[in-house]
Amino acid sequence: MLPLLLASLAIATEGMWLPEQMPELADELAAKGLSLDPASLADPLAFPLGAIVTTGGCSAAFVSESGLMATNHHCVERWLQQLSDETHNRHLEGFTATTQADELSVGPGAKVWVVESITDVSKTMLAGIKRKTSDGKRHDLIEANEKQLVATCEERPNRRCWLDRYDGGGTWRLVDALEIKDIRMVYAEPMGLGQFGGEIDNWMWPRHGADFAFVRAYVAPDGTSASFNSANVPFKPKHHLEVSTEGVKPGDFVMVAGYPGRTSRHVSAGELRFQAESYLPARAAMMRSYADILQDWASRDEEAAKRVGPAISRLENYYKNTVGTLEGLESGGLIEQKAADEDAMRSWVNTAPDRQATWGAMLDEQDAREALLQAERMGSLTARWAMYSSSLLDTAHDAIRWATERQKKRDLDRDQGYQDRNLERLLATQRSKDATLHLESEREVFTMLLRMHAELPPEQQVMPLSDWLEEHGGIDQSMDLLYGDPALASSEARLALFEQDLDTLRASTDPWVQLAFAVESWLAPEREASEVRAGEALRLNPQWFDLLHSWSEEQGRSFSHDANSSLRVTFGTVQGYEPADGLWAKPQTTLPGLVKKAGDAPFDAPADVVEAAQASQDSRWVDPNLGEVPVNFLADLDITGGNSGSSVLDAKGRWVGLAFDGNWESVAADWVYEDALNRCISLDMRYAFWLMERNEAGQRVLAELGIPAE
Amino acid sequence: MLPLLLASLAIATEGMWLPEQMPELADELAAKGLSLDPASLADPLAFPLGAIVTTGGCSAAFVSESGLMATNHHCVERWLQQLSDETHNRHLEGFTATTQADELSVGPGAKVWVVESITDVSKTMLAGIKRKTSDGKRHDLIEANEKQLVATCEERPNRRCWLDRYDGGGTWRLVDALEIKDIRMVYAEPMGLGQFGGEIDNWMWPRHGADFAFVRAYVAPDGTSASFNSANVPFKPKHHLEVSTEGVKPGDFVMVAGYPGRTSRHVSAGELRFQAESYLPARAAMMRSYADILQDWASRDEEAAKRVGPAISRLENYYKNTVGTLEGLESGGLIEQKAADEDAMRSWVNTAPDRQATWGAMLDEQDAREALLQAERMGSLTARWAMYSSSLLDTAHDAIRWATERQKKRDLDRDQGYQDRNLERLLATQRSKDATLHLESEREVFTMLLRMHAELPPEQQVMPLSDWLEEHGGIDQSMDLLYGDPALASSEARLALFEQDLDTLRASTDPWVQLAFAVESWLAPEREASEVRAGEALRLNPQWFDLLHSWSEEQGRSFSHDANSSLRVTFGTVQGYEPADGLWAKPQTTLPGLVKKAGDAPFDAPADVVEAAQASQDSRWVDPNLGEVPVNFLADLDITGGNSGSSVLDAKGRWVGLAFDGNWESVAADWVYEDALNRCISLDMRYAFWLMERNEAGQRVLAELGIPAE
Repeated sequence: MLPLLLASLAIATEGMWLPEQMPELADELAAKGLSLDPASLADPLAFPLGAIVTTGGCSAAFVSESGLMATNHHCVERWLQQLSDETHNRHLEGFTATTQADELSVGPGAKVWVVESITDVSKTMLAGIKRKTSDGKRHDLIEANEKQLVATCEERPNRRCWLDRYDGGGTWRLVDALEIKDIRMVYAEPMGLGQFGGEIDNWMWPRHGADFAFVRAYVAPDGTSASFNSANVPFKPKHHLEVSTEGVKPGDFVMVAGYPGRTSRHVSAGELRFQAESYLPARAAMMRSYADILQDWASRDEEAAKRVGPAISRLENYYKNTVGTLEGLESGGLIEQKAADEDAMRSWVNTAPDRQATWGAMLDEQDAREALLQAERMGSLTARWAMYSSSLLDTAHDAIRWATERQKKRDLDRDQGYQDRNLERLLATQRSKDATLHLESEREVFTMLLRMHAELPPEQQVMPLSDWLEEHGGIDQSMDLLYGDPALASSEARLALFEQDLDTLRASTDPWVQLAFAVESWLAPEREASEVRAGEALRLNPQWFDLLHSWSEEQGRSFSHDANSSLRVTFGTVQGYEPADGLWAKPQTTLPGLVKKAGDAPFDAPADVVEAAQASQDSRWVDPNLGEVPVNFLADLDITGGNSGSSVLDAKGRWVGLAFDGNWESVAADWVYEDALNRCISLDMRYAFWLMERNEAGQRVLAELGIPAE
Repeated sequence: MLPLLLASLAIATEGMWLPEQMPELADELAAKGLSLDPASLADPLAFPLGAIVTTGGCSAAFVSESGLMATNHHCVERWLQQLSDETHNRHLEGFTATTQADELSVGPGAKVWVVESITDVSKTMLAGIKRKTSDGKRHDLIEANEKQLVATCEERPNRRCWLDRYDGGGTWRLVDALEIKDIRMVYAEPMGLGQFGGEIDNWMWPRHGADFAFVRAYVAPDGTSASFNSANVPFKPKHHLEVSTEGVKPGDFVMVAGYPGRTSRHVSAGELRFQAESYLPARAAMMRSYADILQDWASRDEEAAKRVGPAISRLENYYKNTVGTLEGLESGGLIEQKAADEDAMRSWVNTAPDRQATWGAMLDEQDAREALLQAERMGSLTARWAMYSSSLLDTAHDAIRWATERQKKRDLDRDQGYQDRNLERLLATQRSKDATLHLESEREVFTMLLRMHAELPPEQQVMPLSDWLEEHGGIDQSMDLLYGDPALASSEARLALFEQDLDTLRASTDPWVQLAFAVESWLAPEREASEVRAGEALRLNPQWFDLLHSWSEEQGRSFSHDANSSLRVTFGTVQGYEPADGLWAKPQTTLPGLVKKAGDAPFDAPADVVEAAQASQDSRWVDPNLGEVPVNFLADLDITGGNSGSSVLDAKGRWVGLAFDGNWESVAADWVYEDALNRCISLDMRYAFWLMERNEAGQRVLAELGIPAE
């Protein structure tokens, strides 16, 4: 039966649509089953899309009039870690607030942005740019325009403003958001449920995760945004989602509204081949060694496990993603297909003088530019990972950058990321290292990466780094120097560093600061060169996208924009897929599946939950077709990182799920999308409700959602 | 749809039935769709069962009136190896005979046994045994009776006779078979098709194996059985299967007729727990280390790969089987369920004085006996594997055994396995070591196992072995002595050894022979003790089975016999299963799945086949429902090792497939059978036909099967 269903729904499912595109998709939406007026989805600021917010890395949604927000468990993992202390490992145990007074602040680093206006500012952004403007100048002008726009926007209090770029810089939109900075934890299941299956099940189907959490936005009593204060009160959002207790079944229309981060479906075939054949394999090998070291520490040292646990999660997730991307790109001839498409497009350009005149030079320049950039990226890969791996080098280097930029008189003249608006976030980052810093494992990773770097041919090495290490007696002696009781291991010392001016820093005897200066002597010119390249991209990419749009039109294909962290809607149907000839991935999982998998971590669902699951057939959350409580479901929804925590809405726009992952076959979807195989994995909210009604804190949330006690 | 189908077919599928049981199963057979008269399946010597034969380790079937036989590719793997020479690696390349004259003898070791009569000889077997007969004497009497029966039976020429034991020795049947000894290879695909997926896909679904081969039985021109002779002619079997070109589809009735080797579904719960918790884990660990050493050699040395390849296959298969068995036993609470069933049975015995009087003493004695036997098996495990791993120790020890037994005047008085009838097979075994012996890897394995043995507590060590090694300077020095240019590496030296008498052997300076005497000084008393234990078993087991039969009757459950290498029929339906919550294993695979998996070994299907598969949609072998050429299919047929090569027959008794494996969930089925999960994997003959019609040799086979050219 299901293969037939698939056939009858053969409308393309690719597309992270801008809300404004929904009305033009009315026929497709109706065919798939939407019963709302598509026009009601066109306004990102109206209900229901107005209820969707971003936390910077994840999506979330207001689900009550009192600022209650739903997102994924894995989106609040860092916040749970911040809430951990000597008596409670909340990262593992989860968190439940039985009364509103029990809701705890997750710290000053946590923010939620509620978009209040979106304006096309393309003209302002490109002001002053002429055809002959040099690439460096082009970059500077656009950066200056961007900073000016953001600064003006953020003059009002409690604003967070940013620019969304479309078509490689052809179109710009200014987003003006209210920044909420007092976020409190309300409800999160233990790790053994919230991230049941952990890294083993990550990107996999069948899945049984309770990947949800509730947090609440607080503001000052007068309704303005404010940092944590015990006098703060719950925020009253303009819109919040309405919950459905009916769930979904195979064939049902579903849509996801959220903030997908970034896709690269419009890169050239050459770039795709470079990723598949050179860059991603090298990065995967490096990440594997990196993660192995941390895993080894975590397996034999409880304290290390606590500190590097989240880093392991991120690394393993990233590693698995890279491996999956490679698998996806290598199988199914996707690269060859893309290359054939692009060849056809290039022929189309070359066979008409007017098209040749419009895009010919751009194509030639893009080809040359790509070759150059690819060589550079391969060269600096190891050094950049070495820097990334070392928390203290990162701190010292950031302090130098801040001190450098602070020398500029006007905040606006500073490089983005080093303006006053970023200061608070920076300090929060430095403080949070108290919970995550683990010098022994970092030293081992840093040493490993520096050894890899030292084995590169000299022309690919970062010479200031190599020289510094040699001047300090080689890698081993340098490591003794750097890691022998480093001052920066203390939060006070790290924060103090950011108060020093450049001369003071330069005179510092701290080896980390000295090493950071060496690295900066490489990075400073690199940054300048990269600004020229960014200007180049801002000149060429809009022409490339112009060509792509024209070619799509020529082909009669609709053009779907790459994700760019702006609000998008994707729609489709609850449905399974064929992971291999002879196998069918069914679209839903159920509690008996969780019972069967339950055991040692990462499948360590609490015993009382497993026991209750075994006797759950009488629960009001049983799906009538399945005869069991549903757990997770599949749908052909086009999502990516940043969509985590996105609400899944049904045909009536009611909240029925939380998207939290893609299947293994969709890992390469950031590059190439496949209708038949790419699936989004979501939590069926009925499973969350079943879990929550088992305890008082959960019952309080259910009541707030308007779900009556049984 | 499929789950409904499953529910409507909720007749138990467990059962490797004796042909004589078929008429009593008439209702079930009819319900599942058999359209033949069940009575036609009751006679093992009539059509169609009379077409089924055994090769000792596999099943096969006559499929033409000219002695053409079909079996699995993996059943003829050793024969293909024997056919390999310096110009042709037929183990990898396969074999095709374009004319009958091209059919090559697979060597003197290959035999096929065609059963001609089966007689109940229980009375003769138990003749002379009284209630007070001691266990040792009981064993001796039964062995003597068995040998007498076999010897008498084999007095006629070209006979192979053996006894099938039922109910632990309560019932015995004498099987009288014609031995055919000139077997020639007719058709086998390359390894990359015949065993597509190799160890990776072994026991797995989805599957895409062309696991079939054709061989032909030859006899002397006068129709009597004869060893290879170029004047021999094809054997004319009394019965041969009729082929169907229509295939099967989900829901279709299917049955398998073959010679399943052995199941242990009637052991005690205590024995099952011992296997799951102690014995199998220890054996798995040992096999893993063993296989790792061979794999390592094969990966870096082509000659080693050729020589130890089949041993790796056997070991990996056995290892994977052990791991799967452990997984199956540990999951799903099967052991607890069996323990609860047995507890109920024991209560039933204990609550009635007459039952207590009948079986009470037997149960107590069984419990004590099991505890003792289990301790012994754990103790000698390592030493036995060390012996097994060393080809030359095996040869030397076998020569000693032969020399010892030959001292007995009458052939009949010798231990089974050391009678004249076994001589030819023995010599073939010794000769075949020329193709498989690889001293370097064997030395490494033997050393590893001896080191493990040396680390056991002294009371668990085989002291004559430990002493011999110590007398020869420890393990390393002993290895230098044993493996420094051993004489037994030559086939002539090995064969010559079997001509020496015991005194000559005892005087031998060959270190392997000396070591073999040390080992024999341990094994000889072990054998004697084990004969007493065998007598014990022959006394207790019939009582145990008597209890099981009575208990089954009490429960209203039918009793299905354990496999014992006799001809059995199992029937069921083509159907998928649910490998996990959220997944459905579809019942059929198709050529596009093979295309997708094709690549490096063990997925190295020849490029021309992959290319043809991509354009196979117009083939006459396309299944109308699938729209593709079918490859393999699943059915709930109860099979085990020995069933390999068994023919799958449809509702009309026509030949439609070849059973070649079970799914991963059925690996534990030798101990416990699960209707919902255990599936047999078979080749759909339409795939074989599609492959064969691509070449002249295959076309010749198709013509012989009565399939016209297209």
